[in-house]
Amino acid sequence: MYESDARTSRDRRFDLKNSFRQIPGSICAPRGFKCASIFCDIKKLGTGKGSEKGKKDDLALIASDIPAAVAGLFTTNQVCAAPVKVSRQRAKKNFARAIVVNSGNANAATGTQGVKDARRMTVLAAKALSLNERDVLVCSTGRIGVAMPMRNIERGIRACAPRVARSTSNARQVAEAIMTTDTRRKEIALEFKIGRSTIRIGGICKGAGMIQPGMATMLAFITTDAAIEPAALKRALKIAVEQSFNRITVDGDMSTNDSVIALANGLAGNSKSQIKRSQFQRALNFVCRELAKMIVRDGEGTSRFVALHLRGARNDREAEIAARSIANSSLVRTSWCGGDANWGRILCALGYAKASVDETKVDVGYAPPDKRKILFAFRRGRPTNVALKDLAKISSAPEFDLHVDLHLGRGAFTLYAADLTENYVTFNKGDVNDPTTLGG
Amino acid sequence: MYESDARTSRDRRFDLKNSFRQIPGSICAPRGFKCASIFCDIKKLGTGKGSEKGKKDDLALIASDIPAAVAGLFTTNQVCAAPVKVSRQRAKKNFARAIVVNSGNANAATGTQGVKDARRMTVLAAKALSLNERDVLVCSTGRIGVAMPMRNIERGIRACAPRVARSTSNARQVAEAIMTTDTRRKEIALEFKIGRSTIRIGGICKGAGMIQPGMATMLAFITTDAAIEPAALKRALKIAVEQSFNRITVDGDMSTNDSVIALANGLAGNSKSQIKRSQFQRALNFVCRELAKMIVRDGEGTSRFVALHLRGARNDREAEIAARSIANSSLVRTSWCGGDANWGRILCALGYAKASVDETKVDVGYAPPDKRKILFAFRRGRPTNVALKDLAKISSAPEFDLHVDLHLGRGAFTLYAADLTENYVTFNKGDVNDPTTLGG
Repeated sequence: MYESDARTSRDRRFDLKNSFRQIPGSICAPRGFKCASIFCDIKKLGTGKGSEKGKKDDLALIASDIPAAVAGLFTTNQVCAAPVKVSRQRAKKNFARAIVVNSGNANAATGTQGVKDARRMTVLAAKALSLNERDVLVCSTGRIGVAMPMRNIERGIRACAPRVARSTSNARQVAEAIMTTDTRRKEIALEFKIGRSTIRIGGICKGAGMIQPGMATMLAFITTDAAIEPAALKRALKIAVEQSFNRITVDGDMSTNDSVIALANGLAGNSKSQIKRSQFQRALNFVCRELAKMIVRDGEGTSRFVALHLRGARNDREAEIAARSIANSSLVRTSWCGGDANWGRILCALGYAKASVDETKVDVGYAPPDKRKILFAFRRGRPTNVALKDLAKISSAPEFDLHVDLHLGRGAFTLYAADLTENYVTFNKGDVNDPTTLGG
Repeated sequence: MYESDARTSRDRRFDLKNSFRQIPGSICAPRGFKCASIFCDIKKLGTGKGSEKGKKDDLALIASDIPAAVAGLFTTNQVCAAPVKVSRQRAKKNFARAIVVNSGNANAATGTQGVKDARRMTVLAAKALSLNERDVLVCSTGRIGVAMPMRNIERGIRACAPRVARSTSNARQVAEAIMTTDTRRKEIALEFKIGRSTIRIGGICKGAGMIQPGMATMLAFITTDAAIEPAALKRALKIAVEQSFNRITVDGDMSTNDSVIALANGLAGNSKSQIKRSQFQRALNFVCRELAKMIVRDGEGTSRFVALHLRGARNDREAEIAARSIANSSLVRTSWCGGDANWGRILCALGYAKASVDETKVDVGYAPPDKRKILFAFRRGRPTNVALKDLAKISSAPEFDLHVDLHLGRGAFTLYAADLTENYVTFNKGDVNDPTTLGG
């Protein structure tokens, strides 16, 4: 009994010190993962003049040298994309070998032909990589409702596959190939020790618009060389996603294509019984949370990143509802854009949330990122005498923390959110005369 | 039996022909209603240089010569403004005499002092108009969370009251005095016959931002000289609001101050038993619906007005949920701004709505306002072969109808919605260095 207690306590300290360290690279940092990408003109820009702007890679393959435990979480949108339908089934299995992914077309709202096309993508990738099609998952992102250009896809997969075997240094291009309106590559890798084995976890993702994940977010791919039971990996991914991709919002729109897929191939050589769940979990949480924050920071047109800490709700579910009501309010988000600590609009958004709020108990405070000292603008239902210029100094910085306490219970939720800018509108209204500007 | 049946049928025909006609004016068109407005610097712009821009009237009084049956509907936001708390009580009574209303300050999130101030406004107005304070209702609109400047209010009410008695031609200024970020006055009046009595109904309202009413919307005042039982007026207003102010959205933000108040003073001289409910109801519905549409057309920064007809949901409640999910999606609204018939985003917003949707059954179509011929972009779960330029011709007009059929049941809901533009963001982000630009 004592020993067990002692170990638990030591484990916790160990975890708290972040026993892992970040390393360069992303999905190819763990042993035995390879990838490659290629441009195959999925948006059909043509090869004529003026089409240079869209010519970044738009198709990628990610593969493990040996069968890897697989876990996947997908959008809960009732209108889900064809590749989500296919990959959801394949992620239920224990093992997988590869993922084929494209940007430029979401293959969503494409009817039964869309599902045939998504399945065909896995057949083509399996053939080119000498695998079984059932071991290949597929993801797509881009405009909704347009048929997949299967000729270009087929040509692309054939040309891309030989590059996969050749190199482990393609991860950067792959992180770029999955981008749509993202302005920055999103990648991370870390390592930690289990016994004598060094375990690495790497991840890439894409975000930008249509970001309020339901059970997952846009596209994220996580690889690890940890040896872990498939069931344990599925459990761990669910926990990590709950605390990361499910805690962000850019524009409140849940996508049709959200997918997070993790592959664990065991090449680190640890024994599966050695995997201390808390340690692996903490490392995976960190990877997912950092990727999720990158998505918010690079949200379409955003100029401000707000970590919204909501406490004191009747329960965690109501805390989440209240936090999303604030972070998805157009008026709150435009005030963030202007650097205006407009807590009146926050009160208003709390009031119409489907969560209990007692106006006479609410606190609203502002703080620089991760600082403990909170400047309260509203306390227990009354405006404070805080100097507006002190508030404005915090709320006009590129990042700040917003603390809201409802003082009704112990429910809490942290949500990473972004402002609403003119650039978001300009970007998303597109140009009817140039269909390539029209995002999914 | 026969006679009764015949009458009903004739009534319907009568109603269908819109037995009322629009007349000039608004709340002073019905007999026995007077009003006036004044500038009393509620935003505290001062009288120095550069303060001219805000110098429109900001306080108004509306009064009936004799006690009028009263009905009121108010926001369901849990954080409701102090004047809502006061007026909600007073609208429960049968009769009232006057309304005092101000723009520039919402008197919301102002604690117990706010309620005292709201009550004091009714005391001041009652005194100045020689009425009982319990017969006076109060409404406010403007920035949330700032104490009411009661000195200015007191001075304003005293100066405004004598003007009320003097004239019945102040309704235009009053319609302007209640405006905040509205760019246009919103007013309407109509008349119809009951027996030998001519009954008039008039109305004014203000909208602009924070528009997704819960049980009512921003501020709307409706007057009529019809003689009608208070209970019947309350019932009729509830029905009319349900079909008008509760069917609009600009930005999805439900305000803390939404109030619709109707006064009926009976000076038309009809006998109360003569009030044919369907006729009065239809006239009142028309007044409320036209005012509600004016609010959407003049929504902050909006450039497009969309009448969204959602049909085929499992029930009316789910139809409303699905319609609001579409009309409040940032991505759908920005595509409207660009004139882009991006039905992919509509499918996506349907998919994440908390209403049943079967992707394989959905129709999405576009039509010019009130035209029967619908151009379908998506039918029974598949994209159609419609020419994109024909769709764009409709969706890039200032107004169009959007028809969505879920083919799951008989639930239907019509929602009047607006696009999301760069101007909305520019307007609402305000300027931290100029607090007068910061709206509630």
